Amino acid sequence: MYFTQDLNTKEIMFEDKSQELTPISKLGEFGLIKHLTEHFPLSNESSELGVGDDAAVINPGNKKVVLTTDVLAEGVHFNLGYVPLKHLGYKAVVVNLSDVAAMNAVPTQILVSLAVSNRFPVEALEEIYSGIQAACARYKVDLIGGDTTSSNAGLVMSITAVGMESDENIVKRSGAKPNDLLVVTGDLGGAYMGLQILEREHAVFLADPNMQPEMEGYDYILERQLKPEARTDVKAILEELDIMPTSMIDISDGLASEILHLSDQSKTGFRLYEEKIPMDNLTISTADEMNLNPVMTALSGGEDYELLFTISPNDFDKIKNHPDFTIIGHAVESAEGNHMVARGSNQLVPLTAQGWDAFLGNQQNG
Amino acid sequence: MYFTQDLNTKEIMFEDKSQELTPISKLGEFGLIKHLTEHFPLSNESSELGVGDDAAVINPGNKKVVLTTDVLAEGVHFNLGYVPLKHLGYKAVVVNLSDVAAMNAVPTQILVSLAVSNRFPVEALEEIYSGIQAACARYKVDLIGGDTTSSNAGLVMSITAVGMESDENIVKRSGAKPNDLLVVTGDLGGAYMGLQILEREHAVFLADPNMQPEMEGYDYILERQLKPEARTDVKAILEELDIMPTSMIDISDGLASEILHLSDQSKTGFRLYEEKIPMDNLTISTADEMNLNPVMTALSGGEDYELLFTISPNDFDKIKNHPDFTIIGHAVESAEGNHMVARGSNQLVPLTAQGWDAFLGNQQNG
Repeated sequence: MYFTQDLNTKEIMFEDKSQELTPISKLGEFGLIKHLTEHFPLSNESSELGVGDDAAVINPGNKKVVLTTDVLAEGVHFNLGYVPLKHLGYKAVVVNLSDVAAMNAVPTQILVSLAVSNRFPVEALEEIYSGIQAACARYKVDLIGGDTTSSNAGLVMSITAVGMESDENIVKRSGAKPNDLLVVTGDLGGAYMGLQILEREHAVFLADPNMQPEMEGYDYILERQLKPEARTDVKAILEELDIMPTSMIDISDGLASEILHLSDQSKTGFRLYEEKIPMDNLTISTADEMNLNPVMTALSGGEDYELLFTISPNDFDKIKNHPDFTIIGHAVESAEGNHMVARGSNQLVPLTAQGWDAFLGNQQNG
Repeated sequence: MYFTQDLNTKEIMFEDKSQELTPISKLGEFGLIKHLTEHFPLSNESSELGVGDDAAVINPGNKKVVLTTDVLAEGVHFNLGYVPLKHLGYKAVVVNLSDVAAMNAVPTQILVSLAVSNRFPVEALEEIYSGIQAACARYKVDLIGGDTTSSNAGLVMSITAVGMESDENIVKRSGAKPNDLLVVTGDLGGAYMGLQILEREHAVFLADPNMQPEMEGYDYILERQLKPEARTDVKAILEELDIMPTSMIDISDGLASEILHLSDQSKTGFRLYEEKIPMDNLTISTADEMNLNPVMTALSGGEDYELLFTISPNDFDKIKNHPDFTIIGHAVESAEGNHMVARGSNQLVPLTAQGWDAFLGNQQNG
């Protein structure tokens, strides 16, 4: 782990800092495309035509096609002072695949668009694409298209992910019914605490570039922030348990905000039990260390990319002791509203949306 | 037609310059999405689920799905000093639909991602979306998703277009055979000359903001630049003529560059006849006025969004006198290379790719 100070120089976060750098203009318009995409073979049967024509062609067979897009902007969603380029490419793919997983669909293809300023050499794009490639390999999705352009300032990445699923398996945000159980995968708040550590240590570094960052012992939450994973594995686990969620969403903005989305689309209220919210010990201890309320990091931190879903109360026995899932509450009638039942009391705290992205993180899907 | 000087103020090119402006932060994260997309009903049968869930869902039936994405960056692809926001939204959609048309597919849906700096008020986004809406209505495509975020500088738009078509009707860049006829729709070079006029008059305005721009008489080429159309109509015309193109591409970077793409993918060479290149009289006279070679504006100007395709020589009689099409050359063996036959001589001029976008306009599809 290291930091950089000046992104106008060779200080961009390369894995190999000794390499020669190439201006983008040297490769030329079509050379760059070929160069960046040549290591992306098509492996999914549904990918019929990839990069190189006016458009890509996919064959969904008799399945429905699920589409989502996310845009990540430098200085808003990431800080290149502490986010390695390869991780950035990986994460940009993962956040989109997470949206596909939240529809209970299988991600199959991505399209990648980049706007980059001329301060980035070809090698910077190569590192971003190596992260994209790692995500494609990990999740078995094909890069089938995209667009790369210069921008006057900063780096903007826009990724569109495609998934497929038969109609009866697609799960929307809108199917929760009163008394349905509210279930979440994994643990929450870690990605947000990882970000706090990165920002704290980066600030120390900027004040004195000779200071070594103190990252030891924070591995888990740093990885949650820098290299999140999409829960594409959950679909198969639920199928094996013979559970079909009634509604589902991924946790990108924070648990509170996502519960309110399910509430809005399903026309139900929710009861969330504070004591049930799954949190890693490191997340809790780091929050304590930084004088933050641990539960708030789960409620409003975001970027955990876990799945939040509802299931019929009849499925309680199938899921109650499963290590991947935690039942954290249940749906109620819409008129009862959305509340958290505070730990150690029966006090109801209204849930409000205070997403991680306080600026303007307006996803229209996802 | 008017110009603006300072994009940090109310001078952004609004249709109604007297309106009150709203900071984006006032609407809040989800309010903005709802606000911008509420006038986008779904009208295509294949659009099953639009804005509002983790992802959109489309139903391609038994058709193949065609996907393309384009990113447009302020200062690279457009200058807000003379491009009205509504036109920008319209054009951003059109350039993507043009790629779908170039696959001989029917465009059906779009996803829109925007990264905008806080200098843009809500009303600026409304105007961009009104242009997007106009294009959706004109081309009968549905907005099914997207993402909006703040950026530290500038405006970046990334649009993904979806189209559908049965397998046997999809036309790639790769099917041209020697002796196939090379055909183009409409006329070329106009969009580039429109851009020259806009840049000339904008420079005059910046030097003296009291000067009125001299735009009279340039209507056709200004419209070619500011409000291009995608030739989604060509598919039906060719079907009526019982012609299936053997290869096809749209003209975004200039005729020469597109011919070289067909050559590369089809493994053929091409002969282009200079005297056959269709050009509007206004394009020619404006090029003369500005001491530019008119043919170069067609070869290298780009942004005409006409379709370039090849057909079997057996189809010559079907197309020879059709007002929408001009036969401008033919394919030859690959070893013969790509040349233009100069007007009034038999001199062969090698075709080279000198696209409009001299910076870095690297589309991976389209």
